Amino acid sequence: MTAKENYRIHKEPFYQAQGNEVVLFEAAYAARLPVMVKGPTGCGKSRFVEYMAWKLGKPLITVACNEDMTASDLVGRYLLEANGTRWLDGPLTTAARIGAICYLDEIVEARQDTTVVIHPLTDHRRTLPIDKKGELVEAHQDFQLVISYNPGYQSLMKDLKQSTKQRFTAFDFDYPEAALEAQIVATETGLDGESSAKLVKVGQAGRNLKGHGLDEGISTRLLVYAATLIKGGVDARDACRMAMARPITDDVDIRTTLDHAIDATFT
Amino acid sequence: MTAKENYRIHKEPFYQAQGNEVVLFEAAYAARLPVMVKGPTGCGKSRFVEYMAWKLGKPLITVACNEDMTASDLVGRYLLEANGTRWLDGPLTTAARIGAICYLDEIVEARQDTTVVIHPLTDHRRTLPIDKKGELVEAHQDFQLVISYNPGYQSLMKDLKQSTKQRFTAFDFDYPEAALEAQIVATETGLDGESSAKLVKVGQAGRNLKGHGLDEGISTRLLVYAATLIKGGVDARDACRMAMARPITDDVDIRTTLDHAIDATFT
Amino acid sequence: MTAKENYRIHKEPFYQAQGNEVVLFEAAYAARLPVMVKGPTGCGKSRFVEYMAWKLGKPLITVACNEDMTASDLVGRYLLEANGTRWLDGPLTTAARIGAICYLDEIVEARQDTTVVIHPLTDHRRTLPIDKKGELVEAHQDFQLVISYNPGYQSLMKDLKQSTKQRFTAFDFDYPEAALEAQIVATETGLDGESSAKLVKVGQAGRNLKGHGLDEGISTRLLVYAATLIKGGVDARDACRMAMARPITDDVDIRTTLDHAIDATFT
Amino acid sequence: MTAKENYRIHKEPFYQAQGNEVVLFEAAYAARLPVMVKGPTGCGKSRFVEYMAWKLGKPLITVACNEDMTASDLVGRYLLEANGTRWLDGPLTTAARIGAICYLDEIVEARQDTTVVIHPLTDHRRTLPIDKKGELVEAHQDFQLVISYNPGYQSLMKDLKQSTKQRFTAFDFDYPEAALEAQIVATETGLDGESSAKLVKVGQAGRNLKGHGLDEGISTRLLVYAATLIKGGVDARDACRMAMARPITDDVDIRTTLDHAIDATFT
Amino acid sequence: MTAKENYRIHKEPFYQAQGNEVVLFEAAYAARLPVMVKGPTGCGKSRFVEYMAWKLGKPLITVACNEDMTASDLVGRYLLEANGTRWLDGPLTTAARIGAICYLDEIVEARQDTTVVIHPLTDHRRTLPIDKKGELVEAHQDFQLVISYNPGYQSLMKDLKQSTKQRFTAFDFDYPEAALEAQIVATETGLDGESSAKLVKVGQAGRNLKGHGLDEGISTRLLVYAATLIKGGVDARDACRMAMARPITDDVDIRTTLDHAIDATFT
Amino acid sequence: MTAKENYRIHKEPFYQAQGNEVVLFEAAYAARLPVMVKGPTGCGKSRFVEYMAWKLGKPLITVACNEDMTASDLVGRYLLEANGTRWLDGPLTTAARIGAICYLDEIVEARQDTTVVIHPLTDHRRTLPIDKKGELVEAHQDFQLVISYNPGYQSLMKDLKQSTKQRFTAFDFDYPEAALEAQIVATETGLDGESSAKLVKVGQAGRNLKGHGLDEGISTRLLVYAATLIKGGVDARDACRMAMARPITDDVDIRTTLDHAIDATFT
Repeated sequence: MTAKENYRIHKEPFYQAQGNEVVLFEAAYAARLPVMVKGPTGCGKSRFVEYMAWKLGKPLITVACNEDMTASDLVGRYLLEANGTRWLDGPLTTAARIGAICYLDEIVEARQDTTVVIHPLTDHRRTLPIDKKGELVEAHQDFQLVISYNPGYQSLMKDLKQSTKQRFTAFDFDYPEAALEAQIVATETGLDGESSAKLVKVGQAGRNLKGHGLDEGISTRLLVYAATLIKGGVDARDACRMAMARPITDDVDIRTTLDHAIDATFT
Repeated sequence: MTAKENYRIHKEPFYQAQGNEVVLFEAAYAARLPVMVKGPTGCGKSRFVEYMAWKLGKPLITVACNEDMTASDLVGRYLLEANGTRWLDGPLTTAARIGAICYLDEIVEARQDTTVVIHPLTDHRRTLPIDKKGELVEAHQDFQLVISYNPGYQSLMKDLKQSTKQRFTAFDFDYPEAALEAQIVATETGLDGESSAKLVKVGQAGRNLKGHGLDEGISTRLLVYAATLIKGGVDARDACRMAMARPITDDVDIRTTLDHAIDATFT
Repeated sequence: MTAKENYRIHKEPFYQAQGNEVVLFEAAYAARLPVMVKGPTGCGKSRFVEYMAWKLGKPLITVACNEDMTASDLVGRYLLEANGTRWLDGPLTTAARIGAICYLDEIVEARQDTTVVIHPLTDHRRTLPIDKKGELVEAHQDFQLVISYNPGYQSLMKDLKQSTKQRFTAFDFDYPEAALEAQIVATETGLDGESSAKLVKVGQAGRNLKGHGLDEGISTRLLVYAATLIKGGVDARDACRMAMARPITDDVDIRTTLDHAIDATFT
Repeated sequence: MTAKENYRIHKEPFYQAQGNEVVLFEAAYAARLPVMVKGPTGCGKSRFVEYMAWKLGKPLITVACNEDMTASDLVGRYLLEANGTRWLDGPLTTAARIGAICYLDEIVEARQDTTVVIHPLTDHRRTLPIDKKGELVEAHQDFQLVISYNPGYQSLMKDLKQSTKQRFTAFDFDYPEAALEAQIVATETGLDGESSAKLVKVGQAGRNLKGHGLDEGISTRLLVYAATLIKGGVDARDACRMAMARPITDDVDIRTTLDHAIDATFT
Repeated sequence: MTAKENYRIHKEPFYQAQGNEVVLFEAAYAARLPVMVKGPTGCGKSRFVEYMAWKLGKPLITVACNEDMTASDLVGRYLLEANGTRWLDGPLTTAARIGAICYLDEIVEARQDTTVVIHPLTDHRRTLPIDKKGELVEAHQDFQLVISYNPGYQSLMKDLKQSTKQRFTAFDFDYPEAALEAQIVATETGLDGESSAKLVKVGQAGRNLKGHGLDEGISTRLLVYAATLIKGGVDARDACRMAMARPITDDVDIRTTLDHAIDATFT
Repeated sequence: MTAKENYRIHKEPFYQAQGNEVVLFEAAYAARLPVMVKGPTGCGKSRFVEYMAWKLGKPLITVACNEDMTASDLVGRYLLEANGTRWLDGPLTTAARIGAICYLDEIVEARQDTTVVIHPLTDHRRTLPIDKKGELVEAHQDFQLVISYNPGYQSLMKDLKQSTKQRFTAFDFDYPEAALEAQIVATETGLDGESSAKLVKVGQAGRNLKGHGLDEGISTRLLVYAATLIKGGVDARDACRMAMARPITDDVDIRTTLDHAIDATFT
């Protein structure tokens, strides 16, 4: 099937396991249990899902959720054409038909009630009713639903309903432990180990500020950015400021604290 | 009629009666009284309705309600086609025509006033006016309306209007009593009775936290997830964490309490 | 005229007069004065209007109002067709043209300002301007406008404007007095007089709770439901719980009070 | 011109002048100054405008404003047809083209900013730019804009902007003085003078309650309703209750006060 | 070019300069600097812009802004036609193409963010990107953008963003000084100088109430209205009440104060 | 490729570097890291991005963000045409395909969640899923994403999400230091050095008021406006008032302070 091939991941994504999450995901997939991947911004949630899709040899359809996403964006809609209307499957329907892993990224962004459409796909029914077509799609046996969830965003306005949460098994993710994170930075950018370790040190200084003026810690992605700039010839302190301090805050005190940490680390 | 067959349930759904609800539902159906099924998330409301439809030998049309659902989503709409517009019945209209049980799942999610369209189907008239077609559909003699309702969601913003509530007879559902729930877990997953009983024990520990930091208790569905993972080779404590603790809360204290209960049960 | 016949009521609806409301309505209709029928949920307002339409021998067009109803839903709209657009009269326009009684049920649900479109039909003009067609419809001499109104819903957000109210004559309705209500229950369901009287007693116990935890009293309709279940073989106490207590409240205290009333009445 | 004839008023509307408002309106019309007619519900504002249109021999186009009215509803829109789109003038554009008096009834209901489209028609320009057609309509020399305004509705949310108000000359209207109002009631319904005077007495009792529990006084229209019912054979006290008390309030105290006034007047 | 001629002002608009604003505007136009004209309602802002367009011999395209105006209303949109869609330039695009002065009247009414589309036309780029066509319109060398702004409307909800304000040069306008205003009234209406001066005196009495119960002072336009009515034979006091007091307030105290000023001036 | 040429910048934009920002941007571009340009209104952020696009020889596609911008405005949409629908790439998609620098100006204006669509373009994936077409666009190797961000606008309602921020490297911009700013003003307008320096002095007086009654300082752009007017023959004090004081505030105290600064500088 062509559609299936389009969503197949051909190259092994770089992924460094933090614990037994690969085995547990495989067990969940074996029973086709829906999976919720929890964790802060930029800690590798999407990378993990991509890796698992590659490892399981299943196509992956990713949907970046947003507040304006309607049920139709997930399920599909009629397009008006020269000779009448034509139905176009949405990504969720496509995934259910071809047996892909459907990954709804940042699910809390979606309107709470739009998420209701995934319910019949996440219980014993494993079906997707397309009311507008009067069709009841039975999910392909390979289909699995995965969502990501950032607990830091939880708020009165934006949280999943319990009736949605109680349809998933869940994994906690966090930034990798220091040695592992340095290794990731080094592997991804080719930067030497010592500098990579220093970047991790700065990153951890920033993560300690979470809740004390920072909404989120500094992600591994920003460490990789800084390393990339250093490899490209930028002074380490400039690189750290540009990639790890300036993007995340405009608060003068926090910036000063971060700048001190940068200067103290890269003397 | 083909449409009728599409919605027919061919295989008996697994359902374990908790009391005399089957007999009472049959009495309500005999008089075609509308039915409201009340209870917390994941306690088996949808399964019960599916079972009754099978038992009564009537087609079942399920609609997962959501806040963006319009009256047109229930009643139907005109589609634009090459040679003009074509009317497409919505699920409620289809159910009224073919004599199905129409099940509006999580009705409180729907906009309070959208629910007004069901009123003429729920009193002595048993009709559905389709204003846009200028047609008055008389409900088939087999037609019945069933809605589900989670009292835990009741709030100033989201509650049924009294003029809607007073059109239904109602059933209360709750999680099954312990022995029955263990039997359900065992039957659905093939897990041994002892482990199943332990899972129920953990589940009840979680339900005691409802109102003390948890919005909802742990559903039977999550117990079944945990049992499935254990059967798939996952360590019982990992399975419980992944299926019964991580999905429902990010609160550190509650997680600790749940983890203790898990460790104490599966030593 | 065919449309006229579609809306004609052929069978006398069961209606038990509570006072001189039939005569007064006839006087209002004789002068074609607009009528507002006030009263709580399920006390028989819609049944009364249906009865009057039958008695006067006029077609009846009922519109269940809701918050999303636009002026176009009442007046009409252009439909897109193969060879251009076609105008489709809405229910209000149809009623004005064929000389029907147009009954806007639960008018307070409609957006306050949508109700403005009925104004020119309710004063000396008796016309309906259809701006989108550039047509001014003169109401048929048999046309009359009737609206229902539940004073219990009155709130800052949802009330009719004085400029709308002052276009209507009004009737107050309430639950029937006890003997009459028992007779209605008995006549509608075939239940014996004694049991019917007991149901009325339970219903009145519930109505006394209005304002003390209940938003609305128990309607005559729910009494009829309970009677229907008893006739169908259900135990009287089960039937009362299912039809008269469970649907209207989840408050534990109120349920206990109602259950006591049920048990005390049906010993 | 046909359109012009459609909006012509052929029969003299019944109108009883309260002061020099007819002469003043004629002076405003002579200079084509825009006019704002202010006053409470049902005091005869629309009747006055109709009368002036008849007296001046000009067509009258009335638009009942509401919150959902868009600028397109006033100015016009493209309709989709078989061979492309066709422009349809809105009522304001039609009035400007044919030289009609355009009467925007209950202007405060319209979205404050929609009213901006009337601005260029109300200053020295007397033009209406139709942006969507790229056309600039010069108003016909007979065109005049009239709006009605109920000061009782004024609120923070709903009031005209000063930049709109300052484009109009204004008339204050109120309920007619007692003898005149009795004469109006008698002339419109054929009721005898004494009974008409009694109805006015009851009406004035109600008006004294304005601000003390009633939002608006009892309008002349409701007096005419009561007189009509009496003429139709209804008991005077029943007629007063049905036409003058029940429609305007559900407050028990106010109803009692009104009922006393009715009983005291019609002994 | 035809479009250009359509927007050309052929007759010199009556304009009485208050200071050196004509010279300053000419300097701004010479450098094509965007201009913001500030001042209260009805003080002659629009007249000034019209006059400058006439004096500079450039076409003028005026857009009355309102809250529902979208970027498409300014830039243009696709119209659906028999053989596909056709692009229709909006007024801003037309002005940029033909080299007109584009005057956005009452800009604060527009949604704050809609105003973002004018940004690229107001800096060194002088371009207008039409995203929907994929076209980048370079403004004609004669194009200039002018906006009006009423500081009295400034509020938390409705104000221009600094990033918009900082793209304009600005003029302050106010009501003309007394002798000049009397001369304007006399010239526009033909009223004698003494009466005109008296009207100005009343107007100034009203302006002193601004901030003490009136949101805005009485505009020159209303003085001209009153003068017109007097010239048309209306008693001066009636004319003042009708044109200068009734339209702007319903507050009894303010009305009394204004009426006293009117009676004291026109004894 | 034609599209590519359309967006190519052919003339070197005037840009005066403030520090090592050119080198740092080149390093970020070399690794195709997404860039966030931070700073107050009118300090030259857009000019810098334009300059870098010219220096790197890459096409530049600028999108002025606004609150009503939907994901479709960025990604593309179907247009209805005579023979069916045609897909039209949005600016982001075009940039990704042709390898342009895509500059989202004033990104905080866009709805927070619309910005989610840029996420897959800003991590290792460098892809843009077009759900509506079922197409996954791989970004051209020259593609880079740049956004601007005004920290002064940051508010609870309008701020980028951390998950967006953590995808960018960032540059801080501010108004140029005095001598440099005077040189910019002189170079852009041809004004003599002394007058240019005086304008900068006035500008700095205004910037000191930021936070003391002014939301933003006076931008370099307004200094250039004033210089242009002076070069065009306007008195320096008039020019300063018109270009640097009147546009940015209506506060009497602040205006007095600014006027004093102007008079003190240009004696």
